Amino acid sequence: MSFEPDVLQGFVQRYLDTAARGNADDVAALYAEDATLEDPVGGGEVHIGRQAIAGFYKVMEGAEVTTELLSFRAGGHEAAFMFAITVGGAMRIEPIEVMTFDGDGMITSMKAYWGPQNVTQL
Amino acid sequence: MSFEPDVLQGFVQRYLDTAARGNADDVAALYAEDATLEDPVGGGEVHIGRQAIAGFYKVMEGAEVTTELLSFRAGGHEAAFMFAITVGGAMRIEPIEVMTFDGDGMITSMKAYWGPQNVTQL
Repeated sequence: MSFEPDVLQGFVQRYLDTAARGNADDVAALYAEDATLEDPVGGGEVHIGRQAIAGFYKVMEGAEVTTELLSFRAGGHEAAFMFAITVGGAMRIEPIEVMTFDGDGMITSMKAYWGPQNVTQL
Repeated sequence: MSFEPDVLQGFVQRYLDTAARGNADDVAALYAEDATLEDPVGGGEVHIGRQAIAGFYKVMEGAEVTTELLSFRAGGHEAAFMFAITVGGAMRIEPIEVMTFDGDGMITSMKAYWGPQNVTQL
């Protein structure tokens, strides 16, 4: 299974746009039913399944969020990208994320690599 | 198992420096015996084991290679990073790579995300 780079970038842009709109269920709906999410990688917690993933995004609801894709790389049915997310106009984080997709373009796994050293107070 | 970000960045910088020196066995020696390598992701081939990995790097031997770390993110015992590699002064590629490490700092898996659209002719 493989997607053209432009198609994968579209999936990622849709994810970033949806995350910026701030509805947790809408973001979770981009994930496959049995998807996994690890954010941050090494944080010790992997969220498994769409319901758990919705719970993860709930913490951002109500905050003013902006997202911007900075760098994008495609590979088969996977994508790796760097992006910026600002939260409440107070904080900017620049993670590198890796996502895998199923044949329907649903996210099957997401891993976000970032730490305190990638956070800027605004 | 987890490493401090600075330690992980040291592993990655050592890898990039070794790759630039161009000896395939030296690069392969940074990998665990049973490591896996997929470069590019989606290319259809996963190299398994240090010997196969040495074979992968053999193709670069003899070429003038430079490497430069552009962005680095740490997570537990993993690292995600963007870097530039120039080959023979003729071509510059900017992949995003993800690596995992064992407790001894050996690379246990490497995945490189890039495609023709990330290659510049110099």
